[in-house]
Amino acid sequence: MAVLGPGPARFWSGFTMVLLMLTGSSRTRDVLTGHNDTWREPSTATQEDHDPDPHNGTNSANHRKAFPVLAFNYGHVRKPFEISLWILLALLMKLGFHIIPRVSNIVPESCLLIFVGLLVGGVIKAMKEKAPVLDSKLFFLYLLPPIILDAGYFLPIRAFTENMGTILVFAVVGTLWNAFFIGGMMFAVCQIEAAQVSHVDLLSCLLFGSIISAVDPVAVLAVFEEIHINELLHILVFGESLLNDAVTVVLYHLFEEFSHTGTVTAGDAFLGVVSFFVVSLGGILVGIIYGVLGAFTSRFTSHSRVIEPLFVFLYSYMAYLSAEVFHLSGIMSLIACGVIMRPYVEANISHKSYTTIKYFLKMWSSVSETLIFIFLGVSTVEGPHNWNWIFVIFTLILCLLSRVLGVVGLTFIINKFRIVKLTKKDQFIVAYGGLRGAIAFSLGFLLTDNEMKHMFLTAIITVIFFTVFVQGMTIRPLVELLAVKRKKESKGSINEEIHTQESKTSVDIMDIITGKTTEEQTVVPPH
Amino acid sequence: MAVLGPGPARFWSGFTMVLLMLTGSSRTRDVLTGHNDTWREPSTATQEDHDPDPHNGTNSANHRKAFPVLAFNYGHVRKPFEISLWILLALLMKLGFHIIPRVSNIVPESCLLIFVGLLVGGVIKAMKEKAPVLDSKLFFLYLLPPIILDAGYFLPIRAFTENMGTILVFAVVGTLWNAFFIGGMMFAVCQIEAAQVSHVDLLSCLLFGSIISAVDPVAVLAVFEEIHINELLHILVFGESLLNDAVTVVLYHLFEEFSHTGTVTAGDAFLGVVSFFVVSLGGILVGIIYGVLGAFTSRFTSHSRVIEPLFVFLYSYMAYLSAEVFHLSGIMSLIACGVIMRPYVEANISHKSYTTIKYFLKMWSSVSETLIFIFLGVSTVEGPHNWNWIFVIFTLILCLLSRVLGVVGLTFIINKFRIVKLTKKDQFIVAYGGLRGAIAFSLGFLLTDNEMKHMFLTAIITVIFFTVFVQGMTIRPLVELLAVKRKKESKGSINEEIHTQESKTSVDIMDIITGKTTEEQTVVPPH
Repeated sequence: MAVLGPGPARFWSGFTMVLLMLTGSSRTRDVLTGHNDTWREPSTATQEDHDPDPHNGTNSANHRKAFPVLAFNYGHVRKPFEISLWILLALLMKLGFHIIPRVSNIVPESCLLIFVGLLVGGVIKAMKEKAPVLDSKLFFLYLLPPIILDAGYFLPIRAFTENMGTILVFAVVGTLWNAFFIGGMMFAVCQIEAAQVSHVDLLSCLLFGSIISAVDPVAVLAVFEEIHINELLHILVFGESLLNDAVTVVLYHLFEEFSHTGTVTAGDAFLGVVSFFVVSLGGILVGIIYGVLGAFTSRFTSHSRVIEPLFVFLYSYMAYLSAEVFHLSGIMSLIACGVIMRPYVEANISHKSYTTIKYFLKMWSSVSETLIFIFLGVSTVEGPHNWNWIFVIFTLILCLLSRVLGVVGLTFIINKFRIVKLTKKDQFIVAYGGLRGAIAFSLGFLLTDNEMKHMFLTAIITVIFFTVFVQGMTIRPLVELLAVKRKKESKGSINEEIHTQESKTSVDIMDIITGKTTEEQTVVPPH
Repeated sequence: MAVLGPGPARFWSGFTMVLLMLTGSSRTRDVLTGHNDTWREPSTATQEDHDPDPHNGTNSANHRKAFPVLAFNYGHVRKPFEISLWILLALLMKLGFHIIPRVSNIVPESCLLIFVGLLVGGVIKAMKEKAPVLDSKLFFLYLLPPIILDAGYFLPIRAFTENMGTILVFAVVGTLWNAFFIGGMMFAVCQIEAAQVSHVDLLSCLLFGSIISAVDPVAVLAVFEEIHINELLHILVFGESLLNDAVTVVLYHLFEEFSHTGTVTAGDAFLGVVSFFVVSLGGILVGIIYGVLGAFTSRFTSHSRVIEPLFVFLYSYMAYLSAEVFHLSGIMSLIACGVIMRPYVEANISHKSYTTIKYFLKMWSSVSETLIFIFLGVSTVEGPHNWNWIFVIFTLILCLLSRVLGVVGLTFIINKFRIVKLTKKDQFIVAYGGLRGAIAFSLGFLLTDNEMKHMFLTAIITVIFFTVFVQGMTIRPLVELLAVKRKKESKGSINEEIHTQESKTSVDIMDIITGKTTEEQTVVPPH
């Protein structure tokens, strides 16, 4: 396709302006209409003769107005309309980046999206409007699950189970190490008088450490998918980012509960350990239950092919929600559900349903990821911030330091048990790929609203920006420099190729018949 | 598939019970937790020592509680969870009906679904909970658009344009005739002293007439798709149900606005006529604009195949919402958008995207339709009702009478201009197929809350039940009795076959390769 520079650019700016205008106008309009939820027209059948809707200015002097030929009532469609606009913005951004290949070769998509978010956030703020923030409910309930489901459903099982031990060590021991090291050292830092943060007690620091310590699956996916690293490294870092959810949940609970009492007894620590097992195994159990339900249901869907994909999505989503109800690990539940369900579902459903499931999971997770990064940018502009040089700088340094120390130290131990040892290059990539992302931000967002929270959030955002921008941009040249083994040139992982052998054959035939380009032959279309 | 009678039945009842338990428990839990929107845990970092979450009873006598190993917090996932449960219920119902072929041969799916809704509504009411009602926002913004988009995207254009004159006459003149005849006659009926409804004035009756007069696309689709009537009759009735939206919107506005002033001048009537053209042509214009945008965007999606379907859905949905903002006809906007966009999109997008779009539209509209009928049942039980024998009986009689008179009268005139005349059998089917549905209910729901509204709603529901149950159940035997020409045995309309020729060929080959049953060969899978 020819690159139409001015065309798409006008396109995007046009839509961004529409988005901003509507965000602005909706507030005005709501004030004027008064009836925000009135559909189509207010019910005035027996009310007094007043005029709730400002129609197009045909109010006559007597209290009877003419029949409105055209009206404007934005209030009642506001919510779905604005959601649609944000999704449209996300999609147009994705389109645009792919049209301009030069930029997307140097700068990862995640960076560009955060940048767009900063822009949009800046404009909204300049208009003195309130921008939507990446609040925890939106993130954990709506934006995160599609990405995790997509990852879990297409998880390369063999690689995952072969490296399970390594992944678990990194996920559990590594994250614990990170949390306590960063938390403890930050407490020491806070004692420095110059920082003026001596009011931050140890438990708060540990809470901060537990928030900032976890490697983020969204960020890892976003960056690693563009560099096409070899499967082993990919599954190590990505698997770690998935399995550390249980650790993060427990640590966060633990420190959050007790940061106001001020002490943690040995009993609490023991309960914390118990809780870890409950959270992780419980989450997996919930996922298995729903996975079995999904597998069972797919036996009966032969007469209703059209709704087959919906069962997969619904059961998985409900597995996630059910786990969250009991404060179990929703991520692990979702992964377990997808892993359990997939073989049975794929044996039972039609080919079209399979294509729809795959396409839709990729579509949904694409949009989610895009929106997450855009909203990260918007939330950054929105603030409020509390910038503390010493706190932020030390957080950054300690994050990098603890990651390096953790990876090196753990690899030393792990390599004694591995057949295929992890080389220094591997260790470097694993350490460098420890990116932080929106999960850390959303967890920080949950804290009580005070100056300390703002300081924490500012530090978290800085770390996220550093990992996404600096590490994200430099990892590709570094990978090439170090000549790290890349993914096979085939179109997707081996596991996926085997599983989709049939569709690949049929795709080839179809493409020959229809004469479409070879791009369609990619079983897992690159987004 | 073998019919497992007790299995699925246990399955359904199990899920229905879960749904009801959660609806009930959520209210209790919200009271206990107090923090409905707190995610994962409340932020108590610097609050006083109080206990917002009732954990599993480990509150010790001193004000310090042990670390909760397991918690229960349903409040924050309530909304997505309950939505998922309702959709799951709808899907399981669809599954179940297809497993028991005998029932579904006699009773149309819509009847069974309303019945399920009545059951569920009854149980919820017995538990003294508040059931979700089919309120107008839910219906017009979320449930109706997928059905209309599905219909519009796959509209058989040739048949539609060939019969455009007939369809328009039925849609506009027929609906006007219905509205005024029913409204006027009901006013006469209300003058009967025995009815005790003499307070209902003429304008309110005309308002009622305009609500009840319009043929409902959802109900027509639901019933006609099961009887596989020939294409001409299908497009006549269905096309009428789509195009009468503009008439309904204008009439509803007109009478609603002026029912409290009490008089309608000639000027208002003229403005009403003007408004009709604005509403219909404006709606079409909005649809065309978004359709062109969609067609234009699809030129650039070759690098981002994964998100192609989303553009189709988004632009269409925004066309609908934009039309609704200006009180134009959202349905016509959506149809226009789909019709305009489709040829360009299909020329540009990949085959997989095409499959996904088609599958997902069918899926979404299936679920929507199912939910609409279930909620109709639930809303019926929820009430409140105001049963007035004379009002309801006469409404029913007049609806049938006006429909028959209207169709016969208009056909007499139309046949003078048609080459292929409409026979008496055709007229009978067209008259008999004038079903009322959820649009009438939702419009009635918008009226001011008073006794008159309740009476109107009760009458509307009775008419809907009559058309869906009685007419819906008897239309199939009548069609066979009258030996009305059926749809060709091919799998879908001719238009669809031509358009999907390529995928049909590839489906055949794929099915041979994969050895799947011939059910998959249906290009438009029956839902």
